[in-house]
Amino acid sequence: MEPVCLVIGAGAGIGGNVGRRFAREGYHAVLCRRSDQEGLDRLVSVIEEDGNSASGFLLNAVTENSIEERVAAIEADIGPIEVAIYNLGAQIGNRALANTSYKAFELGWRMGTFGLFRLASSVCPLMAERGKGAILVTSATAAMRGNAGQHSHAAAMAGRRMLCQSLNAEFSAKGIHIAHIVVDGAVDAPDTLGKMLGPERYRQLREARGMEHDGLLLPEKIADTYYHLAQQHRSAWTFEIDLRSFSDQPWWNHAIDLGDLG
Amino acid sequence: MEPVCLVIGAGAGIGGNVGRRFAREGYHAVLCRRSDQEGLDRLVSVIEEDGNSASGFLLNAVTENSIEERVAAIEADIGPIEVAIYNLGAQIGNRALANTSYKAFELGWRMGTFGLFRLASSVCPLMAERGKGAILVTSATAAMRGNAGQHSHAAAMAGRRMLCQSLNAEFSAKGIHIAHIVVDGAVDAPDTLGKMLGPERYRQLREARGMEHDGLLLPEKIADTYYHLAQQHRSAWTFEIDLRSFSDQPWWNHAIDLGDLG
Amino acid sequence: MEPVCLVIGAGAGIGGNVGRRFAREGYHAVLCRRSDQEGLDRLVSVIEEDGNSASGFLLNAVTENSIEERVAAIEADIGPIEVAIYNLGAQIGNRALANTSYKAFELGWRMGTFGLFRLASSVCPLMAERGKGAILVTSATAAMRGNAGQHSHAAAMAGRRMLCQSLNAEFSAKGIHIAHIVVDGAVDAPDTLGKMLGPERYRQLREARGMEHDGLLLPEKIADTYYHLAQQHRSAWTFEIDLRSFSDQPWWNHAIDLGDLG
Amino acid sequence: MEPVCLVIGAGAGIGGNVGRRFAREGYHAVLCRRSDQEGLDRLVSVIEEDGNSASGFLLNAVTENSIEERVAAIEADIGPIEVAIYNLGAQIGNRALANTSYKAFELGWRMGTFGLFRLASSVCPLMAERGKGAILVTSATAAMRGNAGQHSHAAAMAGRRMLCQSLNAEFSAKGIHIAHIVVDGAVDAPDTLGKMLGPERYRQLREARGMEHDGLLLPEKIADTYYHLAQQHRSAWTFEIDLRSFSDQPWWNHAIDLGDLG
Repeated sequence: MEPVCLVIGAGAGIGGNVGRRFAREGYHAVLCRRSDQEGLDRLVSVIEEDGNSASGFLLNAVTENSIEERVAAIEADIGPIEVAIYNLGAQIGNRALANTSYKAFELGWRMGTFGLFRLASSVCPLMAERGKGAILVTSATAAMRGNAGQHSHAAAMAGRRMLCQSLNAEFSAKGIHIAHIVVDGAVDAPDTLGKMLGPERYRQLREARGMEHDGLLLPEKIADTYYHLAQQHRSAWTFEIDLRSFSDQPWWNHAIDLGDLG
Repeated sequence: MEPVCLVIGAGAGIGGNVGRRFAREGYHAVLCRRSDQEGLDRLVSVIEEDGNSASGFLLNAVTENSIEERVAAIEADIGPIEVAIYNLGAQIGNRALANTSYKAFELGWRMGTFGLFRLASSVCPLMAERGKGAILVTSATAAMRGNAGQHSHAAAMAGRRMLCQSLNAEFSAKGIHIAHIVVDGAVDAPDTLGKMLGPERYRQLREARGMEHDGLLLPEKIADTYYHLAQQHRSAWTFEIDLRSFSDQPWWNHAIDLGDLG
Repeated sequence: MEPVCLVIGAGAGIGGNVGRRFAREGYHAVLCRRSDQEGLDRLVSVIEEDGNSASGFLLNAVTENSIEERVAAIEADIGPIEVAIYNLGAQIGNRALANTSYKAFELGWRMGTFGLFRLASSVCPLMAERGKGAILVTSATAAMRGNAGQHSHAAAMAGRRMLCQSLNAEFSAKGIHIAHIVVDGAVDAPDTLGKMLGPERYRQLREARGMEHDGLLLPEKIADTYYHLAQQHRSAWTFEIDLRSFSDQPWWNHAIDLGDLG
Repeated sequence: MEPVCLVIGAGAGIGGNVGRRFAREGYHAVLCRRSDQEGLDRLVSVIEEDGNSASGFLLNAVTENSIEERVAAIEADIGPIEVAIYNLGAQIGNRALANTSYKAFELGWRMGTFGLFRLASSVCPLMAERGKGAILVTSATAAMRGNAGQHSHAAAMAGRRMLCQSLNAEFSAKGIHIAHIVVDGAVDAPDTLGKMLGPERYRQLREARGMEHDGLLLPEKIADTYYHLAQQHRSAWTFEIDLRSFSDQPWWNHAIDLGDLG
């Protein structure tokens, strides 16, 4: 039975690329995303065309029991989850307080913080019993500082970060590697950045900063670091790491959050 | 009409003492707490016996519309809220992940993060229109680092901190002073520390560390700093400040969270 | 014998104003600055015209034994140093690495870090023996993050901050209150900002942002917070606090260091 | 001509292992250490026995021009420095302020901060002209927080960290990858930890925590992460990363600095 790499939030950006990378290294990738069955099938096909193995499931992470039941079904039907990637964004764009509804604020928390708590509650007992596992958590600039218009996003991502620290404090000595990965910039991802900007602005941004200047984070390169983290020897584990394009400034030197999306 | 100092979370610790301090300086203190009408009445009486002015209301901060309606009623019936103190704790003691229910995690967020969002959504438009106001937010060690057993508390308090940063980014230039106050140690407060430890252990702790050695934070001394923050000239505002007993180490030098409660 | 408030770095900005504030509260202010006897005499006169008491000394803080001998002489001739303010800046403006000489980098450390170490080595034994004292350290944005052109300044101020944390870890329980004060913006100070910008740009900046908009930190308002810190009860001491104008963004939301000078 | 990986501080711990790892990947490793010609020769031999290429030089990093001349000689005689590892520790053990001499404090800065400044001043112009290079900087818990007895070490390492941030702000867009690597725990290194503890305590510590429990960071495993950082695609560079044993708590959850040495 192949070890499983579960990806919650597997679009065409970080999530899909990380799944493909782990599949290439011998994991069975289980890709979960909220919608777009066609896009999901395409990701699975790409991995299978590589000669590797994957499954795809639509999963609404804010629905009750969705994560819990998926974890149980994977463990029963596919194999032990060795690596779980939590890659759900909670960015809703810049919104003044007056335009941030209670509902939006709560949804930010459900996707940004609570979903990870539910995933951890589901997989940590299994991993701890096996004495082995990794939970790699995609995070964002907003986990490190609040900013204008980021009321919902920053609160949710900061909760995510401190939850990761608390999980690490309880579970690292039990063999579970928790890593909090601060993606500090815009990712070249059509499902998130593309949708946020719209096709025309996305095309312009890619032309201005894309392949040539590497101004965007390329998700297939990000995936290399995720894989490295999962392979670190337990005598030298990383809890926190940041990632950004060489041509960008880190968050402590720039003022505007371009949209830190996976 | 006196300016109002609204305290959400007015027990016999930080909240009550801060209310009394502001009342002594000419504010009308509006004290709100979840339960214990008798204790609330006692706090109001103490302030009135000082020759100052206060009101008290029972308020369950997790109930829908409770904060919103209280803010509206104060503005209509008593006067403009110049200072709002958000002093609700969200500590539930140290609990392993397996013992942290979804409900407890959500309640932590409702008290630790969402309640402040609701308060800010209610008072910021009023303060911004008047070009003046202060929101002083009690916070805890757990806002700065996660720790074993702090899954719920740390996620909630970190959300609180980053929400404060986001509020500050939008509202400081509009004249609203947001301050995030990191109370990094155990407060000598019968309603919180006393209840958490039980009467006997609380008595022992006070004897061991109390008045003589100042090992606990004394809430009436904390109140001096809250008042100073509210009086800072707008050319030199503080966003973040920490407070601890001289005989304690700061969080970055100690391992255990004794319980950072107000 | 009056308690002494010693100010290292007493220009017309933070240092002079803090000295005057403490003198008003009953301290004898000892003002030390590197040059400008006339300016120093003027500061002493202003305090004496208030009806309070001060002395002034020229002191080059990078000269061997200058700080050590001044401390010894004050303790012998004037009185016990209860409060020591370390207010030396180490800003040399924005300089690319190629334009930052070894000498400039070393001078930054001598003023930014080593001078405080020498002051602490001189006064901590005296204060610890008396079980009482305060060292208030002016710091800057550069203590919190490096930035382009800040090679010397950021290294020096970060050393200052961590030295403060180490001093606090050893001496707070012995009754010495160490506070690290992050002045996160431009101070309305003719001796530093005025000289850096030149008279014309300084005049323009003050007109654009000065009294009317409080865009600059006013040093006499900063002094209020220094005094508050020195008076905090030992059960509720602050180690770190930030200060900025209401109309500025904090360092984590702005990109450029305008020059954080005292 | 092979690309060069220069290691300043190449003992039998992190430095030697990182050099060996890069040599295995096709770099010529230039190993520099202060003393012990025999140990240095042994490191070079081990690499050559792997079938790879290395040189060794004794270099006292606090001596004037030592780093500068070595860089110039390497570029003239061996090849372009593509990767520079700054791995000098500045730990002097826990010393109370009274036992920390001015000389020790200055030496800490010379090794901890100024040496890196000199290395960067030497290699950055070369790397920037080539549009390519990496400077990987070993750092320690003390860069993140001061602690009792760490006056010299914490000031020096904090200066190192902020210098790294300033270098990154100026040079990342010019193609130089700066990484600040926080080694947060005790490394299984005979030259540093072994010497600090003495042979008997070192043997005991290794037996208690060593190979079996991985309680020490194993330097050959640390080297994997150094190599990964140097190979990251420029669209997804890491500036800061932490490393610790799975069985240790991170610095924000532990109180004592065991000695973070390379």
